[in-house]
Amino acid sequence: MAKLSFEDFKPGAVTEHGPRLVTREEIVAFAAEFDPQPMHLDEEAARSSMLGGLAASGWHTCCLMMRMAADGFVLDSSSMGAPGVDEVKWLKPLRPGTHITLRVTVLDTRVSNSRPEMGFVKLRMEVLHDEGVPLMELTTSMIMGRRAAATVAAP
Amino acid sequence: MAKLSFEDFKPGAVTEHGPRLVTREEIVAFAAEFDPQPMHLDEEAARSSMLGGLAASGWHTCCLMMRMAADGFVLDSSSMGAPGVDEVKWLKPLRPGTHITLRVTVLDTRVSNSRPEMGFVKLRMEVLHDEGVPLMELTTSMIMGRRAAATVAAP
Repeated sequence: MAKLSFEDFKPGAVTEHGPRLVTREEIVAFAAEFDPQPMHLDEEAARSSMLGGLAASGWHTCCLMMRMAADGFVLDSSSMGAPGVDEVKWLKPLRPGTHITLRVTVLDTRVSNSRPEMGFVKLRMEVLHDEGVPLMELTTSMIMGRRAAATVAAP
Repeated sequence: MAKLSFEDFKPGAVTEHGPRLVTREEIVAFAAEFDPQPMHLDEEAARSSMLGGLAASGWHTCCLMMRMAADGFVLDSSSMGAPGVDEVKWLKPLRPGTHITLRVTVLDTRVSNSRPEMGFVKLRMEVLHDEGVPLMELTTSMIMGRRAAATVAAP
């Protein structure tokens, strides 16, 4: 049990996860289910859109971020989830055939006042394309359990 | 062609869309693909989590919101997409068997300075459960085309 706990997240620390190849098939399948705007479904419609060509729904990029985070560290941590997300920025189109990576930066941590057995870990999540350019960024505060030892008050 | 344009979004206007039934099968299928944390996959693991029982990934709620928005008004509008999202708040768990609705409130509108043929429509999106209680809220600014007439400058 070498699970990551609150104490393992140090402000300033940066980790990278992935890469993951994003295919045309999954872009179109996601769009058909959740975001059936023509620019996410059809190359010709997409060419005349602001995206200038077929690109993933921004929500798809969020979901791929979550999956890379889950595989990269969340499933091996004491995470209890997150109350929300701030400042999702869709910076550039995510094109079919792109290998994406996830860069996670620890911005801040604080122990919960009301529940000292847990704390908040504020993270910046950036999804980068092949050449390291950010396609999306967001910030979120994850709720992480503290190590058992840390919650035992000194006598 | 009675498409909704920038001019059709009046600050203060509220519309509702849906309802849509959310099943256990789709909650688990989404989680398996994008957010495989035990609390979204397995009833027993979920019971001992902060969610207190199986509940959808917050990202799933975002995606269901997008689909209801697409069917409700986006696909019948001059929307060109959105540069991002602010303040996603996951307020309560989305349980299997819930009928959700989407409430959209127009917060603000402004014409683009650099591209007067379009404008920004700031919206609050709330996903409500059967009894009208918000499960999730977020704000986003959609880019909407203006009516052709509106973009012809007066002589």
